Amino acid sequence: MSNIFETLESEVRTYSRSWPVVFTHASGATQTDENGREYLDFFSGAGALNYGHNNPVLTAPLLEYLASGAVVHSLDMMTPAKREFLETFQELILKPRHLDYKVMFPGPTGTNTVEAALKLARKVTGRQHILSFTNAFHGMTLGALSVTGNSLKRKGAGIPLTNSSKIPYDDYFDGTTADFMWLERILDDSGSGVDKPAAVIVETVQGEGGLRAARTEWLRSLSALLKRHEILLIVDDVQAGCGRTGTFFSFEEAGIEPDIVCVSKSISGYGLPMALTLFHPELDVWEPGEHNGTFRGNNPAFVTATAALRAYWADDKFEKQLAGTIATLHTGLEKIAGSVEGAGVRGRGLLAGVIFKDLEIASKVAAEAFANGLLVETSGPEDEVVKIMPPLNVTDEQLARGLEILAAAVRTAVESSTLAHA
Amino acid sequence: MSNIFETLESEVRTYSRSWPVVFTHASGATQTDENGREYLDFFSGAGALNYGHNNPVLTAPLLEYLASGAVVHSLDMMTPAKREFLETFQELILKPRHLDYKVMFPGPTGTNTVEAALKLARKVTGRQHILSFTNAFHGMTLGALSVTGNSLKRKGAGIPLTNSSKIPYDDYFDGTTADFMWLERILDDSGSGVDKPAAVIVETVQGEGGLRAARTEWLRSLSALLKRHEILLIVDDVQAGCGRTGTFFSFEEAGIEPDIVCVSKSISGYGLPMALTLFHPELDVWEPGEHNGTFRGNNPAFVTATAALRAYWADDKFEKQLAGTIATLHTGLEKIAGSVEGAGVRGRGLLAGVIFKDLEIASKVAAEAFANGLLVETSGPEDEVVKIMPPLNVTDEQLARGLEILAAAVRTAVESSTLAHA
Amino acid sequence: MSNIFETLESEVRTYSRSWPVVFTHASGATQTDENGREYLDFFSGAGALNYGHNNPVLTAPLLEYLASGAVVHSLDMMTPAKREFLETFQELILKPRHLDYKVMFPGPTGTNTVEAALKLARKVTGRQHILSFTNAFHGMTLGALSVTGNSLKRKGAGIPLTNSSKIPYDDYFDGTTADFMWLERILDDSGSGVDKPAAVIVETVQGEGGLRAARTEWLRSLSALLKRHEILLIVDDVQAGCGRTGTFFSFEEAGIEPDIVCVSKSISGYGLPMALTLFHPELDVWEPGEHNGTFRGNNPAFVTATAALRAYWADDKFEKQLAGTIATLHTGLEKIAGSVEGAGVRGRGLLAGVIFKDLEIASKVAAEAFANGLLVETSGPEDEVVKIMPPLNVTDEQLARGLEILAAAVRTAVESSTLAHA
Amino acid sequence: MSNIFETLESEVRTYSRSWPVVFTHASGATQTDENGREYLDFFSGAGALNYGHNNPVLTAPLLEYLASGAVVHSLDMMTPAKREFLETFQELILKPRHLDYKVMFPGPTGTNTVEAALKLARKVTGRQHILSFTNAFHGMTLGALSVTGNSLKRKGAGIPLTNSSKIPYDDYFDGTTADFMWLERILDDSGSGVDKPAAVIVETVQGEGGLRAARTEWLRSLSALLKRHEILLIVDDVQAGCGRTGTFFSFEEAGIEPDIVCVSKSISGYGLPMALTLFHPELDVWEPGEHNGTFRGNNPAFVTATAALRAYWADDKFEKQLAGTIATLHTGLEKIAGSVEGAGVRGRGLLAGVIFKDLEIASKVAAEAFANGLLVETSGPEDEVVKIMPPLNVTDEQLARGLEILAAAVRTAVESSTLAHA
Repeated sequence: MSNIFETLESEVRTYSRSWPVVFTHASGATQTDENGREYLDFFSGAGALNYGHNNPVLTAPLLEYLASGAVVHSLDMMTPAKREFLETFQELILKPRHLDYKVMFPGPTGTNTVEAALKLARKVTGRQHILSFTNAFHGMTLGALSVTGNSLKRKGAGIPLTNSSKIPYDDYFDGTTADFMWLERILDDSGSGVDKPAAVIVETVQGEGGLRAARTEWLRSLSALLKRHEILLIVDDVQAGCGRTGTFFSFEEAGIEPDIVCVSKSISGYGLPMALTLFHPELDVWEPGEHNGTFRGNNPAFVTATAALRAYWADDKFEKQLAGTIATLHTGLEKIAGSVEGAGVRGRGLLAGVIFKDLEIASKVAAEAFANGLLVETSGPEDEVVKIMPPLNVTDEQLARGLEILAAAVRTAVESSTLAHA
Repeated sequence: MSNIFETLESEVRTYSRSWPVVFTHASGATQTDENGREYLDFFSGAGALNYGHNNPVLTAPLLEYLASGAVVHSLDMMTPAKREFLETFQELILKPRHLDYKVMFPGPTGTNTVEAALKLARKVTGRQHILSFTNAFHGMTLGALSVTGNSLKRKGAGIPLTNSSKIPYDDYFDGTTADFMWLERILDDSGSGVDKPAAVIVETVQGEGGLRAARTEWLRSLSALLKRHEILLIVDDVQAGCGRTGTFFSFEEAGIEPDIVCVSKSISGYGLPMALTLFHPELDVWEPGEHNGTFRGNNPAFVTATAALRAYWADDKFEKQLAGTIATLHTGLEKIAGSVEGAGVRGRGLLAGVIFKDLEIASKVAAEAFANGLLVETSGPEDEVVKIMPPLNVTDEQLARGLEILAAAVRTAVESSTLAHA
Repeated sequence: MSNIFETLESEVRTYSRSWPVVFTHASGATQTDENGREYLDFFSGAGALNYGHNNPVLTAPLLEYLASGAVVHSLDMMTPAKREFLETFQELILKPRHLDYKVMFPGPTGTNTVEAALKLARKVTGRQHILSFTNAFHGMTLGALSVTGNSLKRKGAGIPLTNSSKIPYDDYFDGTTADFMWLERILDDSGSGVDKPAAVIVETVQGEGGLRAARTEWLRSLSALLKRHEILLIVDDVQAGCGRTGTFFSFEEAGIEPDIVCVSKSISGYGLPMALTLFHPELDVWEPGEHNGTFRGNNPAFVTATAALRAYWADDKFEKQLAGTIATLHTGLEKIAGSVEGAGVRGRGLLAGVIFKDLEIASKVAAEAFANGLLVETSGPEDEVVKIMPPLNVTDEQLARGLEILAAAVRTAVESSTLAHA
Repeated sequence: MSNIFETLESEVRTYSRSWPVVFTHASGATQTDENGREYLDFFSGAGALNYGHNNPVLTAPLLEYLASGAVVHSLDMMTPAKREFLETFQELILKPRHLDYKVMFPGPTGTNTVEAALKLARKVTGRQHILSFTNAFHGMTLGALSVTGNSLKRKGAGIPLTNSSKIPYDDYFDGTTADFMWLERILDDSGSGVDKPAAVIVETVQGEGGLRAARTEWLRSLSALLKRHEILLIVDDVQAGCGRTGTFFSFEEAGIEPDIVCVSKSISGYGLPMALTLFHPELDVWEPGEHNGTFRGNNPAFVTATAALRAYWADDKFEKQLAGTIATLHTGLEKIAGSVEGAGVRGRGLLAGVIFKDLEIASKVAAEAFANGLLVETSGPEDEVVKIMPPLNVTDEQLARGLEILAAAVRTAVESSTLAHA
């Protein structure tokens, strides 16, 4: 039977290869395929569905908005939906955290907000160079790609990626070296040949690059070091933000205040395209229209974003519940990792995973999990980490069940691997 | 009273400055502000609302879909909504036009599809250089920006924009030179110093760059010239596509078949973020996942896209009706331009405008039109063109009324300008 | 017999392929090979031997200097030889021409002075982009190569050459377009996408790129146009300078005063490595040591340079005699060109040549001339021009003899070509 | 009195500021100013005068050659002088060291040979990226500058320097980390974001960057590591080569065989501009003329180069004597360094120096030494090292005298510094 995805869609497609079924419905932490089979979804739209699929708290205002004849698409015109979002974001997110940020709508995707952040950092400082970290992932457009680590994706550019250098992420040398040895040295050494950067861009957890999580003290030292050298700190919170690590912003625990923050994925809460670039007011040197984009005013996304903020971030209830979920997940993952020699837990919050010594195990685990009704992705340059990213509101039962399937999948994968190497 | 748009949103905002009202509702060719004032919208979301605001033909299936619990966000997993879109696009768009294209979902914005096109062209050819045209607009991320003309936007990059050169668009020298004199010469001259390009990227009408429209014979010559030199032709149909010029693709009239086509803006039909990159099957050399993006599977957009294709492009009724609307608009614009010395009509289809000798008139016309309830934008490096872009399904009455307001606004602007210069 | 040039020297060698003999001695306009055969040298070390080989007027002070124990190598330390050169250059060259230039010693080669000029232009203006001309040749190091036209040489870089664009040289479209149509248009059009350049670099005669000579009115218009736009004009006088076109600087006839001038090749007069970068005093914003180079103080070259200036440029005798030589050469070349259908004379002064319709003739002429004892090179992207560049002090007899050999070689080449195509 | 060096020469001049006298004569390890004052020269033309000024062993054949009417300037034509140089270089240098290199004449300066090496490495591998080391110095033209460390010099480019990254030189972290920790890690990690390089370029002693000397085991490990990854190793031996460290090539002691070697400065032996690029025969993929340069055939330099090779490298006498001189110098420097708290000896062979804790001392030492008749330079990004580089044939008496002046200058500088900080 001819399959239009294979005949018409480009070879670039990828998830449809790992999960070769057609998903029809979805709800919370589950997706259902067209044969009626249900899957536990511990992938959450690569982090865009932190509140689960089709969360009814968001569906209702979305349907109401769309049925009302209100403005859907508005570029950067003013609409009540945008006003409500801005007011809610200020009240529930910025003010309680004492964060003084201007809000930019840079176009509705993660790569858009990263490109806007890089442009702004260069404009403000008059410097061109950007430092990013080993195994970073920031997006697929040329600017964002230049600060990304993955070599397959970098080669896709077809031209040399310039104006950025790479520095080692936390624990890149497995604890054998002092933090920022390299960074401090090159910034102090006028002969280092590493041009003084406009900014350093960092993910607090490397969602695509293998789920390394930066320690809070590392983030604090990074922030302090850059302040001393008058270099801007950009936190790319596209994947780790919006509650994924246990707090709204992933950098809250570290107590730092980045100069620029990139937000996208789960900001709309419903999987609708939306992104923000946040920055200190004194950095707001944009000319009107100097950066724009057709879909920067996606009002349905503003509506669900506002509803999500109100439902989950008006007080600390959700955050507390989330702490429990995180604890349960990590206990489970530690147990699984503990059962395999050389395995270890990676990540932070609900952006976590298990790394195996044998680089091929993670892919086998993901395949076996899928066969048993659990959607989990791999992460890392060699797909060496199984990535566990349930919705933040996953139920205890679902989490337990998911961990069970995962544990079984790991056993199977490790056994098959042992046999293969025997 | 403090206004959160001014206090919290970045200075980069622009339309909210020209149109300082809050738009609450919208329907077809009208938008209503929160004081209940109605505006004729001849701006159409910068081309993302070709079928008008909140078109009920699309609202219905969208609401139904969202209410049904179907998958909303799917990256590049398979869903029925995506399948239906692919099938419908193949049946109603590609097949009747004998176009053999693979379909890539590069992320949901115009700049994403342009970046994907440039990357693919470079990968396929192994060449790095791209040629683009004077006054081109292709997007705000680093790759797309490098092929864009506007100097304000280019400076926003903060770094030199490299790996592309500019060539003169059709009629750039007001008819004084042979077409492609420069392009032919440099391609034939191994000493020209212009490196052989991977591709030439072109808009058939320069939506942002002053509404110049390329003649069909110019496009045909361009296409033939590039074929002779084995250089890829990329048509950026983000703004001019989806019916805007009278046919689904803007290049149909010219009878050419570009190697790569960029589609976005009105492809969802409802202002929802969505984009396609189309290319000949032999160019489909992507590795799985070599280019990706979180919001490349925006199912609500697939649903409205499918509905729009079925409602408007299943037969030639809409196209015929559109031809009448286009004729009426151009008659009207010619009349207006004829009334002002040195003025002229620019553009093609419903992507048209009037250029004035006095560079300041267009902005005055837009302001005066807004004061009288008509939303029109300006275009061109000096905002020297009034841009008229009603929805494709604007009614005759609305079109007539809009042209009347426009004509009056032109009279007022010209008078004030004459007084100012007297 | 093994030949160490073939076994040990790199494949990059080129003249030893066209002229496969070992040259032992040289004097004025002649070279002698080790079999005692004498050749008329109308190649003059690619323009580095304007006063002929081993000119005794220069040999004497050179030998005296070297025998005296004076400083040979001094970087940018002060020496009497350098002082005398500076004083003589000021007295005999700058003052009489009312040129107010600072003198920089950028390293002893043409590509060094071009790199210094480009760096300075970018530093002074704070702009990055440089415009250069189709078929320009400015050198082989990365900066100079980026403004060079030849595609074989450009590909040698192994990376994309960036931060410059190409514009059409005088008569690039065979007189069919107005001068500077493209340049004026893009400078006036803020949407052209060609970033405002720091400088335009030009050769008044394209020595390597096919011997096109810019008309004086074209140079004047270029200079005026750039002044209006506050863009620096760099004249690369490496090949055309030092008398080659009839005056010391090749731009004198045009009456322009470039902002920066690159001089090398024949400035030492004896074929010794030496180069200068000249620029208006207000451009002298270099930090001490910001640009340097080990061989920027080649004192033997200063000595011969001073002697050459004194011998040839102390009054107008040499210039007058040169005018006669130039007239004779051009009469001869016109006659030769007139004898071949479609042939024409190219160049200016003693930097001239003949272009043939059949692209292969020039190489045949050069080979035939060599067989008959005349050294002439080809020029142009396809080696389509025979390049005639005798020493400036060639005797009438030598010039007549050389032209005779050339005329015969042309006849032979044209005949063989006609036969080949019959 | 007006001084033409100040009025006419560019502000970029630098040595004439530290040593504000006019040097007239020079001989061996001495220079004499026009007041008849003699200076011991422990600077040796920045390494271009390894055999001393006006070495009579070279003067004689040079004068003879120039007086004989032999060819002086020959581009890459064949001459007996070039043949003799090639034969001698093969016999006395390459063969005894079992080095199988092709010889390229890339133009007569250090930056030329580096540019040629980088181009060739990129061409051969098809990769664009180059790795170079912190505090490297490779030249002032755009390609060489991009692999150079000094920030003042890098800024001189006026554009971002791209297509290279920096890695830590030996002991950059004062022995606290394993060698090549960073390099090994990024080469093994496909997600590091550091694109696989075409080549790594290294100086075995960093002549300009502070006189760090790489240990032989570090060089061996580097060479082995690159071989495993099929990355080319370029040794820039421009300053450290030609005997400066005790052997002809500075990498001999390490027992490695670089893929490409850059040679210049003292290769002519007499301070005459000359350079070589050496590479393994299988890398000789140049097209004829793909890299060229007017002064690549400087025959007087070939003559002195041949004479120098014959005089000093025909047997091991010179090398043995040199070993003694080196030992004496280092004993002396150790003694001096030992007398100052926190001071240390840097460098290798006769390319050595003393670093002081107080960054300002080195400049004071150089000034004081000059006042007492000794020419020594500083090195390092903050001029923190006094650089001692006598001619290789310095006499014992001169060496002793120079060390004495140096020791006294150090005492004075340290005292004045202590007073200043008291």
